[in-house]
Amino acid sequence: ADMLRLQHDSHRRLNILTGEWVLVSPHRTSRPWQGQTEAKAEAVAPAYDPGCYLCPGNMRANGERNPTYEDVFAFTNDFAALLPESPQEEIDNNGLLVARGEPGVCRVICFSPRHDLTLSRMSVADIEKVVDLWRAEFARLDADPLVGAVQIFENRGAMMGASNPHPHCQIWATHSEPDELAKESARQRGYYAGRGGCLLCDYLSLELEQDARIVCANDGFVALVPFWATWPFETMVLPRRHLVALDEFSAEDSRALANILKRVTACYDNLFSTPFPYSMGFHQRPSDGGAHPHWHFHGHFYPPLLRSASIRKFMVGFELLGSPQRDITPESAAERLREALPR
Amino acid sequence: ADMLRLQHDSHRRLNILTGEWVLVSPHRTSRPWQGQTEAKAEAVAPAYDPGCYLCPGNMRANGERNPTYEDVFAFTNDFAALLPESPQEEIDNNGLLVARGEPGVCRVICFSPRHDLTLSRMSVADIEKVVDLWRAEFARLDADPLVGAVQIFENRGAMMGASNPHPHCQIWATHSEPDELAKESARQRGYYAGRGGCLLCDYLSLELEQDARIVCANDGFVALVPFWATWPFETMVLPRRHLVALDEFSAEDSRALANILKRVTACYDNLFSTPFPYSMGFHQRPSDGGAHPHWHFHGHFYPPLLRSASIRKFMVGFELLGSPQRDITPESAAERLREALPR
Ligand SMILES: O=P(O)(O)O[C@H]1O[C@H](CO)[C@@H](O)[C@H](O)[C@H]1O
Ligand SMILES: O=P(O)(O)O[C@H]1O[C@H](CO)[C@@H](O)[C@H](O)[C@H]1O
Repeated sequence: ADMLRLQHDSHRRLNILTGEWVLVSPHRTSRPWQGQTEAKAEAVAPAYDPGCYLCPGNMRANGERNPTYEDVFAFTNDFAALLPESPQEEIDNNGLLVARGEPGVCRVICFSPRHDLTLSRMSVADIEKVVDLWRAEFARLDADPLVGAVQIFENRGAMMGASNPHPHCQIWATHSEPDELAKESARQRGYYAGRGGCLLCDYLSLELEQDARIVCANDGFVALVPFWATWPFETMVLPRRHLVALDEFSAEDSRALANILKRVTACYDNLFSTPFPYSMGFHQRPSDGGAHPHWHFHGHFYPPLLRSASIRKFMVGFELLGSPQRDITPESAAERLREALPR
Repeated sequence: ADMLRLQHDSHRRLNILTGEWVLVSPHRTSRPWQGQTEAKAEAVAPAYDPGCYLCPGNMRANGERNPTYEDVFAFTNDFAALLPESPQEEIDNNGLLVARGEPGVCRVICFSPRHDLTLSRMSVADIEKVVDLWRAEFARLDADPLVGAVQIFENRGAMMGASNPHPHCQIWATHSEPDELAKESARQRGYYAGRGGCLLCDYLSLELEQDARIVCANDGFVALVPFWATWPFETMVLPRRHLVALDEFSAEDSRALANILKRVTACYDNLFSTPFPYSMGFHQRPSDGGAHPHWHFHGHFYPPLLRSASIRKFMVGFELLGSPQRDITPESAAERLREALPR
């Protein structure tokens, strides 16, 4: 047959947000795995850990003591990758050795005083306080003339490089626009200019109409496996309304996002009956003072697990040198995730 | 001070081959690590493993028996991600859901009949046979009208997703040009058009002149830590002559590449006294029939280890959502690698 069957034939799919492609090999899901398997997830953590630098009342690396906070808590990273005082100078040796000073700010946000919780096991009301703190942090950094872009992200689980299980995320605010954000800016701007509408608004209505990759939804937000997902159970979280950035959120938007975050993370935990590792983060307009009406706020979840709590997807040889590759199709991943939704 | 000091201040560096940036935070190398550590490397493997599907004389997944090969051996992957018969049709739903059939060929190359060897412990003469097989495989695939680009790569070590320690690499030949290659094509073409010379020839002479990031060299090839390296001990291997692809290699070039591959991998093993995991692969002109005089053949080594055999770099939250980030500078990495060179 010459017809391309997306559930059977090798093909590539376009990531409309970055302009890059992912290779999909659906026929290959039956491949046996003899390679590395992951250690069991850590033993259940205590509610308070005297050795944790994020728990209330404990001492941090810089000698300061955390307040005995009761819900959320934000502070500047003691080992910040970005510092406000870095010079902004540029070095350029003939276009071959090019470097630019990159000042910025790194913040840490504790989601809860409880050392043993995860987003999936927090109440929606408590997650709402986290979303509201993101809004406040974004507003402050967005107004800082040093800051050109704000990345809010969570590394969850030892497999994703989290050095502490205490529920927390980071904010890295850079002077320049990081490449991943720049690609999404360019694609959304191009679509807006050429088609006179918002790329993700149009994409979301098509997804809602086809109903093949939706995981869950509420009045404000939708979680789906994007058509171009690279990680096996990657999802994207989008507001139904055209929200450009966190500063446009209403109290209802915060509540709706909190509800979706709880459902997506609980569904992940259910899938392989394990605390699901992931990196998660939000993309929104850059903080350069522009309005960026083409920008549509969204979150990405990038989880590494493939087949069980101990078998992950490796993004290695072909992925690093060629393009990302996946076996299970985004459509089957969405189906599996829907079945794992908490009822 | 307002002067940018590359060994002290946070900055970003331009990857001239892709046009993308890496964030460098040199002040952060003293950060303590409390996160995941890696298991010890596998126990020493036997010279022959009756359960290995790559050892001579053994049965493979498709029921075929391997020949009792004496040096190198190539066959078509039994679980190929790419198949020649996939239809090439395109699906395009309004520019929002875009997919293209991707036919291709996946090959496996055994480096040696010995199950327990690695490139670092093979003789240069035996590695030369591997290089010559790459040349033969490339010539055959390059001539196949189905094939538009050829990726030769090795995933070494369980940490890099290798499912079998038997020394081997893979070749994935795709119909279309994968994104990483396409970025390098575009940048080299642009430089050639604008400056009338080869980007990597000019870059290599600057590196040889500065002598700050060179790891080792011989008459034909140079191994260096690129100015824009993202992995802690990433290296690039370049021919001194302007070679566009493997089809231009002389017997001397093969020998010189074999010598450099042995020295780079042995130096990696020495660095943390452990069999060093990595993904490695070669980039060369696409196989579309064009001459691509702007293309300069080269290899990339992407090794994950950061501080010891058990502490790796995680490319997670900020890296996945923003841009790659590193702490140790490419200049100190090159110095450490030079000290680890076998004498
Ligand atoms: O084909 P292998 O060696 O079993 O698989 C390995 O290399 C492939 C190509 O880089 C990756 O897609 C897989 O995730 C990895 O486990
Ligand atoms: O700052 P952390 O949580 O110690 O570090 C973690 O997240 C950072 C940002 O994604 C990464 O650069 C590190 O490799 C990772 O281990």
